[in-house]
Amino acid sequence: MPDASFAETSPETAGGGRQPIVTGADYVSSLRGRGLKVYFMGERVPEPVDHPVIRPSINAVARTYDLAVEDPDLATAWSSLSGRRVNRFLHVTESVDDVVMQNRMQRRLGQLTGTCFQRCVGMDAVNSLYSVTYDIDSARGSGYHRRFREFLIRMQRANLTLGGAMTDPKGDRSRAPSAQSDPDLFVRVVEHRPDGVVLRGAKMHQTGCLNSHWILIMPGTRLAASERDYAIAAAIPVDHPGLTYIYGRQSCDTRALEGGEIDQGNARFSGQEAMILIDDVFVPFECVFVDGETEFAATLVERFTGYHRRSYVCKTGLGDVLIGAAALIADYNGVAAASQVKDKLVEMAHLNETIYGAGIAASHESKPTSAGNFEPDGLLANVCKHNVTRFPYEMARLAQDLAGGLVATLPSEKDFDNPETSAQLRKYLRGRDGVKVEDRARVLRLIENMTLGRNAVGYLTESMHGAGSPQAQRIQIARQMKLDEKKKLAAALAGAGEDPGRS
Amino acid sequence: MPDASFAETSPETAGGGRQPIVTGADYVSSLRGRGLKVYFMGERVPEPVDHPVIRPSINAVARTYDLAVEDPDLATAWSSLSGRRVNRFLHVTESVDDVVMQNRMQRRLGQLTGTCFQRCVGMDAVNSLYSVTYDIDSARGSGYHRRFREFLIRMQRANLTLGGAMTDPKGDRSRAPSAQSDPDLFVRVVEHRPDGVVLRGAKMHQTGCLNSHWILIMPGTRLAASERDYAIAAAIPVDHPGLTYIYGRQSCDTRALEGGEIDQGNARFSGQEAMILIDDVFVPFECVFVDGETEFAATLVERFTGYHRRSYVCKTGLGDVLIGAAALIADYNGVAAASQVKDKLVEMAHLNETIYGAGIAASHESKPTSAGNFEPDGLLANVCKHNVTRFPYEMARLAQDLAGGLVATLPSEKDFDNPETSAQLRKYLRGRDGVKVEDRARVLRLIENMTLGRNAVGYLTESMHGAGSPQAQRIQIARQMKLDEKKKLAAALAGAGEDPGRS
Amino acid sequence: MPDASFAETSPETAGGGRQPIVTGADYVSSLRGRGLKVYFMGERVPEPVDHPVIRPSINAVARTYDLAVEDPDLATAWSSLSGRRVNRFLHVTESVDDVVMQNRMQRRLGQLTGTCFQRCVGMDAVNSLYSVTYDIDSARGSGYHRRFREFLIRMQRANLTLGGAMTDPKGDRSRAPSAQSDPDLFVRVVEHRPDGVVLRGAKMHQTGCLNSHWILIMPGTRLAASERDYAIAAAIPVDHPGLTYIYGRQSCDTRALEGGEIDQGNARFSGQEAMILIDDVFVPFECVFVDGETEFAATLVERFTGYHRRSYVCKTGLGDVLIGAAALIADYNGVAAASQVKDKLVEMAHLNETIYGAGIAASHESKPTSAGNFEPDGLLANVCKHNVTRFPYEMARLAQDLAGGLVATLPSEKDFDNPETSAQLRKYLRGRDGVKVEDRARVLRLIENMTLGRNAVGYLTESMHGAGSPQAQRIQIARQMKLDEKKKLAAALAGAGEDPGRS
Amino acid sequence: MPDASFAETSPETAGGGRQPIVTGADYVSSLRGRGLKVYFMGERVPEPVDHPVIRPSINAVARTYDLAVEDPDLATAWSSLSGRRVNRFLHVTESVDDVVMQNRMQRRLGQLTGTCFQRCVGMDAVNSLYSVTYDIDSARGSGYHRRFREFLIRMQRANLTLGGAMTDPKGDRSRAPSAQSDPDLFVRVVEHRPDGVVLRGAKMHQTGCLNSHWILIMPGTRLAASERDYAIAAAIPVDHPGLTYIYGRQSCDTRALEGGEIDQGNARFSGQEAMILIDDVFVPFECVFVDGETEFAATLVERFTGYHRRSYVCKTGLGDVLIGAAALIADYNGVAAASQVKDKLVEMAHLNETIYGAGIAASHESKPTSAGNFEPDGLLANVCKHNVTRFPYEMARLAQDLAGGLVATLPSEKDFDNPETSAQLRKYLRGRDGVKVEDRARVLRLIENMTLGRNAVGYLTESMHGAGSPQAQRIQIARQMKLDEKKKLAAALAGAGEDPGRS
Repeated sequence: MPDASFAETSPETAGGGRQPIVTGADYVSSLRGRGLKVYFMGERVPEPVDHPVIRPSINAVARTYDLAVEDPDLATAWSSLSGRRVNRFLHVTESVDDVVMQNRMQRRLGQLTGTCFQRCVGMDAVNSLYSVTYDIDSARGSGYHRRFREFLIRMQRANLTLGGAMTDPKGDRSRAPSAQSDPDLFVRVVEHRPDGVVLRGAKMHQTGCLNSHWILIMPGTRLAASERDYAIAAAIPVDHPGLTYIYGRQSCDTRALEGGEIDQGNARFSGQEAMILIDDVFVPFECVFVDGETEFAATLVERFTGYHRRSYVCKTGLGDVLIGAAALIADYNGVAAASQVKDKLVEMAHLNETIYGAGIAASHESKPTSAGNFEPDGLLANVCKHNVTRFPYEMARLAQDLAGGLVATLPSEKDFDNPETSAQLRKYLRGRDGVKVEDRARVLRLIENMTLGRNAVGYLTESMHGAGSPQAQRIQIARQMKLDEKKKLAAALAGAGEDPGRS
Repeated sequence: MPDASFAETSPETAGGGRQPIVTGADYVSSLRGRGLKVYFMGERVPEPVDHPVIRPSINAVARTYDLAVEDPDLATAWSSLSGRRVNRFLHVTESVDDVVMQNRMQRRLGQLTGTCFQRCVGMDAVNSLYSVTYDIDSARGSGYHRRFREFLIRMQRANLTLGGAMTDPKGDRSRAPSAQSDPDLFVRVVEHRPDGVVLRGAKMHQTGCLNSHWILIMPGTRLAASERDYAIAAAIPVDHPGLTYIYGRQSCDTRALEGGEIDQGNARFSGQEAMILIDDVFVPFECVFVDGETEFAATLVERFTGYHRRSYVCKTGLGDVLIGAAALIADYNGVAAASQVKDKLVEMAHLNETIYGAGIAASHESKPTSAGNFEPDGLLANVCKHNVTRFPYEMARLAQDLAGGLVATLPSEKDFDNPETSAQLRKYLRGRDGVKVEDRARVLRLIENMTLGRNAVGYLTESMHGAGSPQAQRIQIARQMKLDEKKKLAAALAGAGEDPGRS
Repeated sequence: MPDASFAETSPETAGGGRQPIVTGADYVSSLRGRGLKVYFMGERVPEPVDHPVIRPSINAVARTYDLAVEDPDLATAWSSLSGRRVNRFLHVTESVDDVVMQNRMQRRLGQLTGTCFQRCVGMDAVNSLYSVTYDIDSARGSGYHRRFREFLIRMQRANLTLGGAMTDPKGDRSRAPSAQSDPDLFVRVVEHRPDGVVLRGAKMHQTGCLNSHWILIMPGTRLAASERDYAIAAAIPVDHPGLTYIYGRQSCDTRALEGGEIDQGNARFSGQEAMILIDDVFVPFECVFVDGETEFAATLVERFTGYHRRSYVCKTGLGDVLIGAAALIADYNGVAAASQVKDKLVEMAHLNETIYGAGIAASHESKPTSAGNFEPDGLLANVCKHNVTRFPYEMARLAQDLAGGLVATLPSEKDFDNPETSAQLRKYLRGRDGVKVEDRARVLRLIENMTLGRNAVGYLTESMHGAGSPQAQRIQIARQMKLDEKKKLAAALAGAGEDPGRS
Repeated sequence: MPDASFAETSPETAGGGRQPIVTGADYVSSLRGRGLKVYFMGERVPEPVDHPVIRPSINAVARTYDLAVEDPDLATAWSSLSGRRVNRFLHVTESVDDVVMQNRMQRRLGQLTGTCFQRCVGMDAVNSLYSVTYDIDSARGSGYHRRFREFLIRMQRANLTLGGAMTDPKGDRSRAPSAQSDPDLFVRVVEHRPDGVVLRGAKMHQTGCLNSHWILIMPGTRLAASERDYAIAAAIPVDHPGLTYIYGRQSCDTRALEGGEIDQGNARFSGQEAMILIDDVFVPFECVFVDGETEFAATLVERFTGYHRRSYVCKTGLGDVLIGAAALIADYNGVAAASQVKDKLVEMAHLNETIYGAGIAASHESKPTSAGNFEPDGLLANVCKHNVTRFPYEMARLAQDLAGGLVATLPSEKDFDNPETSAQLRKYLRGRDGVKVEDRARVLRLIENMTLGRNAVGYLTESMHGAGSPQAQRIQIARQMKLDEKKKLAAALAGAGEDPGRS
């Protein structure tokens, strides 16, 4: 008997039985009344859509829907799978250009939201599962690929938001899943039933989960043959009663509760990071896409990260915002023409475009998979992400340099409103003539937001760890750098034997 | 007639007519009941000592008093000026060793508080005014030096905390003080009276002001001969009724209001940054140490920054804490033995000691001034601070790398306390065996605190702008790098004429 | 009356009246007997083809011909201009793929030669002149484009090597061409005749000039309207009697004269840098492509550098060699498995691919010009080159790290041959078991060659200054970074007015 | 029976039986006629003093003698050991100031020679053997310390140059000395005789060996208890017949053979790197200072590197020259006032002084050893050297940037002298008005010399590997960074247990 929660939240009705979602407003409506178990700061959140701390992360996803309406060439694509235009975040890449367009859309959304808009994990999970299920079927004669296509078509028709969940708690990181003191520290199948599987565990750092409609659970690490229960990929509706969400704290998160707008820096948009507890959730087989094929776990991870590490060009959109903010504050301070100021802005742009270059190059160098969809160049994708673990930090440093100390000492907007202090603050906090004091404060708060505050989580820490921490990229670069070929090149020019015994 | 506020708060009684301050507790008591006009988030603060957001910054200064009791060799010195041991923060350097010991004390206090302990501005102001007043007297026959010594002896006897205030609002930064649309954008004398001067203006980014007893107002920039009214150095008691303090916001400041401890990361200690409004404050001549000698403004700034830029070795104490925290979390995660982890810790230590090297070298290379006190090598001091504008950012990046993504996604401590979520959080957020989940959370919060949160202001932004923004150091390095001598060295080895026409 | 030298060296016969050049050997033959006036180390070189110092640079160009034979897909293209397959270095880009394929060919030739193969300037000059002549004609009704196409068809048919010459001596670099003490410090027209122009001046740092057949002279800087005589682009046969070549010295150049092979590191291949003196050379109008249109000088420079800065992905081919050499020597030393060794190789590869990413991205993002050929994205091209001014230096540093001190202390190969020392050297200079001492020496010499020696000129110094020094890229990045758009993005998110009065 | 060679070259007479050496000229004379077996480029060198390639390295050492005459405060010291002023390079440090003065002398000599002056190894070997022999005697009751003092007094009296030899060939670097296929790959005792020991092996990369009078052989690595034969420290006269020297090649070394001066860049001074073959050399016990005490090998290495890594502040003297050269060429090119030029010079100076800061700090923080001499702070010494493995490379990069492409394309000085090309070269290679073309060429050659040419070996490669390669410093930093203390600091502030079970 299928699990009730899946029937209730079947893709077609996950938006509440309504028409397919079109606009951001539709999307926001679709999230209401789902009865999610969400906890934040020790309390259950009655309706996440209306929670001031959570809402900005919902707004960011809503922006992706609105962009699809405003600029369909950029944010939608014709899907031969479902025979209709679909949101690009749900689209299986059918050409090199499709992969490249993902990057263009990502940068644009980064520019428009100044934060993580949270839909790339789902997009990249779709594309990697598409080909991995195909490959498993080819090797094993299983039927995952058809299942997955059907699942996806239903998502596309209803235009739902699909999250992806890969990172397990991991416990002692020096140990494999099966060697942990608690076997649940990696998500696993605790029971096989005739019609499906029961999952237990947790997923960490889930960007955009409780504002999604469905979540794709995937393994996050290479597995040994004996670790079959950990080799599971499956879709679960976000409002399944067996799921609990613990909303993570972010720097300055509670400024959203203070009633003002300026001190938030970017009041409209933020990312979202939550922990998902999976408490013995039954998943019917129609929603199971990998089940025990341990040898494909590493393939799935590698293929997913191939897409996802290049998806971090989104951060160049945030970088555009930060460069703009740094230029504005320098202008407000009257120093826009100083050579050192211009030079620092150029350096920021150079670093930002260096990230973009490697990312868009990875996409341009896409190749078709056996399943027919296109995947980016793995080496360049890793190089892109690896630069993302470095350059935004340097750009944030330069932005703080240009901002001046006020970025960290500015009084609250409430002090600007307080009649006892307002006049003096406006007198003394002016910049060059013609600049409104409030504008200066707003731009400073935006820089604070992106370098120390709420969106610093998305711009810095997530840049470090999202899609894998730096060392994960280095391992992939080591694998893909073709060292033996390079040794042969050197040996040929030096006139040396290249010593094939080693690599 | 002397201003009443000065009489009421004369040095001997600034601590409330009590005995000299000895312990941190004495110091905290001395701050109570001063009736300061302090505003934070739109409201007047009734008693700053008891305000949860402000108190940690008071605790940090209190720690300096306690260290003087615990380790008098480190944190006090024999003063030939007042003929007694005095707190080192009030001590006029009488030897090279005195300058070096400042650095040792600063690093230690950085280790003990993990934040800015806020007394270095005063210490460095004392030492720079000591010699500049001497030089002005030598040139002008004025009597500033004697006044300043007397003032200082009273401070030392009462063992008060002395702040320094240098940074003006500056308005359009491309314009000189006298060219601003509002002449008050740099602190200035608005009236000369027979017995003193009346000051107006504001000072920005005041580290440790409302937890001081007196503040030394000083010019912050080079002045033209016509800008006499801006050439003013004077001492004002912090509780003067003409002063108003607007407490600046810091990242995550309101976590101190939430009632818990863990989420603050470093609940006990923080820095303090406020804006001081000076509303026509009369200062009697006995507290005036520069008055119109514009040609000494640049000297004072340069001499102060000579001391102060090297004082930033304090950040190596914070760096020690951050390295330790990164090592702890790696250990908790079970990866302490991984070569990449060890390598990143070494890199952090290398950068930290590089800062220390230049700072302590500047102190070791101190020379006596005409007034007899010792001042550090200016070039190395600037080099030290310039590295401080770079390396802590890289160290913060590495610490976030080692921390893992949880540093920015960890649930609130209240979720750990909530019975609905507590058990699951404790199950899934464990590290390697033997590590308490709460310890792991605490260390992650400390890293968040220092890289994104409250003390990131002190560790990063203040490292950037305190004692002058990076470009200010570059200008000083350019002045002191002896380029003409270097050109001669090169010309001699190359056998070229060195072209004396240019530099 | 046309200048005799042009008739004698008309494109069809520049190869000596023979058939079109096909192989590298054909090419080398075509260079013989041209009677060039070449000076090196104070003496005229009788036959450059046979000069040991010059020959390796000829070999590198010869390699480009051989590659066209071995891999025509990579190194040739179908030209609709001349209706035949042509060498890619002479090809006008007809698609995005044509631009991308240039990069692939460049990287491959970098791998095969380990040095600068010197033909990119000509290729990039062809493509920029192709569209600029079209634009001038459109604006002025001139006939340059037709002339240039005809010239180019003749080049393609004979399969000649075309050099490009842009960099003038420049004298006082703070002054414009017309403001120099000597007007000849930028190449200029000293006489207009009815049938052509007479040129005078010099071109500096000419990579691949005396091993070319023809040279395209172009202006190298923005020109004022009054500087018409400096706005000249023209083709001159390399063996024109009015040209003199002074061959520049390169680090370790004379090792090629010592009779051995190992000490050269890369004995077969090198770059070539010479100064060309242009002593009143008459150029008939059929070889003149810009003549006085000063307003197009900057366009030509910018368009050329757009191609050429992205052409520096060639250095990633050299980087591949250097990475391979570093891996080999680590292996020879028995430390290939050490984590720090692997990590440094990964870092080298990461930097190398970061360069490649921006370059290949610039090519992938090519757009058609009005003339119909394709040109790369200017911003990414500049970003690529700017990374080239940094990363090869860091890669060289890492290669020296991995090489060990022996890279700079190794005895001469002659000491290995000397019976008095040979046995001892072979005894003591062995690496791990199974490695030939001579192989170890060869690889060390290759690393020396690329980091200190002859090809360090091509790998490092040319990476710095070729296609414009770093500041030239920063100026272009500043122009193309769309700062006003970025300011608008930031202002929108901050809720601030973006202050349109400034940029 | 003592070995004849030791008698012949006893310290008192090593200078040929003459008076103690005083001037550089005395020193040069003392090197003549020693009959050394020196090989360079396959031939035995009849008289090294007169060999154009070798002489500049002798000149550099001679400069150390002349400095002692010119500035005795800087380059000599009063020795309580021999009761006289002695050359500082032979002086046992008797105070903190003595250690600091070494650094000042080193920087000055770097400025005066622009290269490695080769005497620091000996100086640092003296100081480390001084205390290690003392410690061995204390532990073992041996008599090494007295022997060493007597040896040293004789050196001081005769004012001889003492080299140090530490680096063994090492073969397979992953294996210990006793695990090599050939046991001679580390220097070892092959025979114990009643009156001394017989040594065999080789020492690599010997900076300043054949221009020394005596050489101190020391172990270069940690040894196992079973590797007693490798635990040997001893003094051997340079002209011992059992020693053979193979002179290493350096970039551009043979320019010294061309007869000119300009192309050498720095014609007077260079470093020297040679390999020493030790062919069963008998050393009488009076010259043996460690013999089998394996447990002190690591101590000796660590103590030596403590001195020697801080000795690399010498490179800041070279840095001064390079900064000066970069400033000169910018001036010659007419761009000295450009903001980007000034900024790059400031950056170079900042990096240079950062090196100096850590080095001089290590010296200032010296502590007395049990033997009574002073040794620098080990952590800061390692930090100093580690920066030396990075910053000179970046400074070289910046110098090449400022130099312009001509640094690698400049014609030979012989072309300037050739009447066929001289006038044209002088016409076209001028810089701004008033600058001599030859001066411009000379400064460019100096920059080439230091960044690609002969002294790039000393400024770059030796900076990388001298006193231990980068990884060696990282290991020492790891050992000395007091990670456990730092963990405790972090745990205290976070309120966490610090988990003493791990480090």
